[in-house]
Amino acid sequence: MEKFQIPEWAYEFHGHQCPFMPIGYRMGTIALEKLGVKKSQNHEMHVLSEMGVGHPQGCMQDGIMSSTSATFGKGLIEKLNYGKVAATFWYPNKGGVRIFLNNEFQEKLAPHDFFKYRKKGVEPSEIPAKVRQDIIDIVLTASIDELFTIEILPNFTYTPVKGSFAKEKCEVCGEYTFERYLRMKDGKKVCIPCSEYNKAEKGFYYPQFNTNK
Amino acid sequence: MEKFQIPEWAYEFHGHQCPFMPIGYRMGTIALEKLGVKKSQNHEMHVLSEMGVGHPQGCMQDGIMSSTSATFGKGLIEKLNYGKVAATFWYPNKGGVRIFLNNEFQEKLAPHDFFKYRKKGVEPSEIPAKVRQDIIDIVLTASIDELFTIEILPNFTYTPVKGSFAKEKCEVCGEYTFERYLRMKDGKKVCIPCSEYNKAEKGFYYPQFNTNK
Repeated sequence: MEKFQIPEWAYEFHGHQCPFMPIGYRMGTIALEKLGVKKSQNHEMHVLSEMGVGHPQGCMQDGIMSSTSATFGKGLIEKLNYGKVAATFWYPNKGGVRIFLNNEFQEKLAPHDFFKYRKKGVEPSEIPAKVRQDIIDIVLTASIDELFTIEILPNFTYTPVKGSFAKEKCEVCGEYTFERYLRMKDGKKVCIPCSEYNKAEKGFYYPQFNTNK
Repeated sequence: MEKFQIPEWAYEFHGHQCPFMPIGYRMGTIALEKLGVKKSQNHEMHVLSEMGVGHPQGCMQDGIMSSTSATFGKGLIEKLNYGKVAATFWYPNKGGVRIFLNNEFQEKLAPHDFFKYRKKGVEPSEIPAKVRQDIIDIVLTASIDELFTIEILPNFTYTPVKGSFAKEKCEVCGEYTFERYLRMKDGKKVCIPCSEYNKAEKGFYYPQFNTNK
């Protein structure tokens, strides 16, 4: 296969050269193609990443954001904390597609020198350039079938959070706070840190979706 | 003031031209300077964004990631869900710095035509280019003092999650799963979706930090 091309700025955004950013970049490209859509200039696609915390390979998600523009800043990518190298892509009125990095490809990459360095605690930018380039080339020349298991989910539904521009100043610290995050305390409208309620109770967001299989 | 320069690729990553990506980009640049560090090629800086869901202006976070390389994919930026245009930047052995977009600057931007379009539901890429450029230029020519309140937090501590490369195949679906996300069910090691435990109980991650003021 011809070498897949990734723009240089995606590496600059990510900060280093590693195999998982390119894996995510290719994953995003396939999602756009399978859903028949362009990259999300505004707030179109939502990505439910199955990655979590406390493990490597999350770099995949920077690749997904770079090829789809479904970014963290725009609220278009969430972590499901399943600990898998997989993501489901949802687009309004198009359903979803789940893409998983094949076990066999994970096993193919695992013995590479790149991971020997990583497991010794060497950070990616400190790994010899030749080693980095070699593992990236393995990713960029692999076929889609070798890389991924792709599952089309025509009935996948996702409900984005309804947004509001309403904000008010916290009556203690004075800082503007979006309305949904104002709390009441001692008869005043206050922000969460000033309320101190979050010492005992954290607020979380979990994306609302249904695979409808 | 001279016009602050933002690389073109940051807009390409973000997907559209708006004022809040540049605000975040400048915020990140100041954080690097105040902490006396370079952008994070690997896993150095951690950003605790005070933004949440269901409100605009989260675009700021794409700017922060672009100027600092403290990215979502690398697990270096988290949302605290406070609903404020603010973030705290932590760097190992350097403490932290909190940067808040001044109320007065928020009030200065608010009546701009850009937001008249946004509040009518017009997406950023559909707003006339002249209107977009004008509001971006307001951001790029504002002084740091006009934009931000900067609080140095020398004793700010943050504890990154300890990582592990360990993974095993789920004994039901067969997919590789990072160890911390394997669960036990009917005597088998299974992934969270196969366990179905997450229908009743979600797992969340909340960053561990202390402002130590």
